Parts: sequence; structure tokens; C-alpha cells
Amino acid sequence: MKSYRKELWYNVPGRRAFVNITPQVEACLRESDIREGLALVNAMHITSSVFINDDEDGLHHDYDEWLEGLAPHEPVGKYRHNRTGEDNADAHMKRQVMGREVVVAVSGGRFDFGPWEQIFYGEFDGGRAKRVLVKIIGE
Amino acid sequence: MKSYRKELWYNVPGRRAFVNITPQVEACLRESDIREGLALVNAMHITSSVFINDDEDGLHHDYDEWLEGLAPHEPVGKYRHNRTGEDNADAHMKRQVMGREVVVAVSGGRFDFGPWEQIFYGEFDGGRAKRVLVKIIGE
Amino acid sequence: MKSYRKELWYNVPGRRAFVNITPQVEACLRESDIREGLALVNAMHITSSVFINDDEDGLHHDYDEWLEGLAPHEPVGKYRHNRTGEDNADAHMKRQVMGREVVVAVSGGRFDFGPWEQIFYGEFDGGRAKRVLVKIIGE
Repeated sequence: MKSYRKELWYNVPGRRAFVNITPQVEACLRESDIREGLALVNAMHITSSVFINDDEDGLHHDYDEWLEGLAPHEPVGKYRHNRTGEDNADAHMKRQVMGREVVVAVSGGRFDFGPWEQIFYGEFDGGRAKRVLVKIIGE
Repeated sequence: MKSYRKELWYNVPGRRAFVNITPQVEACLRESDIREGLALVNAMHITSSVFINDDEDGLHHDYDEWLEGLAPHEPVGKYRHNRTGEDNADAHMKRQVMGREVVVAVSGGRFDFGPWEQIFYGEFDGGRAKRVLVKIIGE
Repeated sequence: MKSYRKELWYNVPGRRAFVNITPQVEACLRESDIREGLALVNAMHITSSVFINDDEDGLHHDYDEWLEGLAPHEPVGKYRHNRTGEDNADAHMKRQVMGREVVVAVSGGRFDFGPWEQIFYGEFDGGRAKRVLVKIIGE
């Protein structure tokens, strides 16, 4: 069994954004030289997500509005977590809706994607450098 | 390390449905001849889900109503994604709540399920043939 | 390829709680003697979750209030699932938001965690003994 590990760094200037990280994760797979196995791609931070969906700007706008409706940032004071001096309680919730990680099959040396699947980093508390972990195991 | 791959096809006539796919996924496991490992089961489409929960019709009715409350289909025009000519923005959201994939342990040649765990395909934008990927690695 | 399996039991007295299970899951990893691979940690019951987030009491309070807003326990009679004699339909929904499982990379014999990542058992229908499965594969 082979295994491969890499950290990818992202620094989103605003509070929230969705970044298509498929090219960087595919570069990891090529570097790993693994042809059959499983790839785990996860946010290493608890106010961000890794998820698979469509690379369409309108959808990302809709996700942002929808998540803000489900877990509003304001008023910051309504969250007990924010009494610790943070203002990111809403980001911890948005991340649970969108998920921490994806596991992707590796078949024939490629990610075994459906027709529109793309891997995204979802940032809900940006403004600093944060990491995504890529771990691939197989042969 | 052994690896196994299969696509399962589903064509749900209406817009939304939950289909118990446990028997087909268990058939994959038998075919794989893997006794210890991990199985990934994921929707290959970004408006459907694979998840594990209870095979109880009332619950599926409740899930459907609940998801429609969290991410209503109508009015279609309120989603920017739907300006692309689609009407399925809500399906992209419902899928995030229910998840893209499950990873299930394989122990002693069987899925290592709790007492009520069953694998479901959740369709949120049906009316056409769509795929689920089963990838199993182990020994 | 090595594989390891263990069930962890939890009995939460009230209806809902979040329990930090990181120490027990780390003990499993040490016992497995696996240094490179993937660990799956999943709830074996369909009204509870395993997820990764922050070990901060205020946040757990916020999660509990937020989930109760998204999928209220009362009125019990509004859920069709509860006509089966159950009163836990809301727990099946809360579990979908928080997730069934996490997959964690194992690197150099340790969980490859980001700075604040901790593994939690989330109980949404407590008052009885329930299980978490730890399955680790690798070398």
C-alpha cells in the first residue's frame, strides 16, 4: 500500500468564499503515483469546508445567501461561542451544513468523478491562511 | 490491496425520492471478494445524495417536507443558479444537507452496520438516469 | 494492509449531548499499530452523529439551539415518523445536518488533525447505550 500526504494553503481575503481546488488536488494525485485507492480531502480548520458540487457562480451566490439564512452572522452577540472573543460561531454552523471532507475514489490513476463534480474549499471565516489536507492511499 | 469499482444506475420518475440501495451495494461487496476494508458509496451527480438512515416511509415523508422547508423549490426565480436555464438550485442545497457519500467499514466480508443502518440514494432532481459509484478497497 | 475494528459505547442520560471522544479514538489508533492510512469513525445508530469541530462549551450550546431551530423536537405529532410510536423524528434530521461519520488521515502513527480538530459523538436521542465504530486501515 502506498500513501501520500500534502497540505494545500488558502488565504481568502473576505469572510466567505468558495474556491475550486480541483486542479491542485489533481496535481497531488499525479504526484502520489497511486492508481487505485481512496483520496481524503478535508479542511484542517473548523470554520471551513471541503465539498463537491458545481462550478457555477450563480450557485455559489445562492449557497452563500442560503447559508446566511440558516446560520446568520449577525447579531454576533446571539451566539454564546462569541463570548470567547470570537465572532465566527455562524461559520462553525455553515461548515457543518457543507461538510468537513470528501472521499473520492481513485480509479485508473484519475479521480472517479461524475460529469460535473468539482472539489471546493468553502471559507466561512477568512482573512488568514488556512489549510486543506490531501491524503491518498492505495496502489 | 484489492480494489473494486461499480456504477449503479437509478432513474427516479418524479422530482424527488429516496431509494434503498443496500441490496445492490451488498451485491457489489460480495462480487468484490473483499473481507476487510472500506467502501465508498457516492452520488456521481451533484443534485442527489447517498446517505445512511432508517428504511421507514414516514421518516422519508418527513425528510422531504423538512428539506423543502430548508431549501424550497419555488419560487424558482429566487435562485441565481436558475438563470442558467436550470430549475434545480434547491436540489443542490438539499444534497448538501443530506450529503454526497457514505464510507462504510467492511469487516469479515460484510458491511459493518449498526442495527438500523440502510444505504439510500436521495434524488432531488429526478426524471433521468443518474449514477451511484461503489468503490471498495481492502483485502 | 492492516485493519483494525473497535466499538465504543456511550450512554448519554438526557436527550441530547456532545461528547469529546478523541481520547478513546486515539487509544484505538495506538492499539491498531497503523502508521499510515485512513480511520473511519461513525455512529452506528441513525439518531446520532460523529463529527469534528471545536471543544468549546458555548459552541455546543449554540449548536444545540441551532439544531432545535432547524428541526424542532416539538410538536412531536407533526412528524409522520412519530406515528410508529417513536418521538425521535427530529433526531433523524439533526443527525443529517451534523453527519454520520468522519474519515481522518493517519500519518506517522497519529491523527493528522488541524490545530483545533476534535472528534465528537453527537447524541440526539439519548437515554440508552449506543455505539460508535472505529475502523482503521493502512500499514
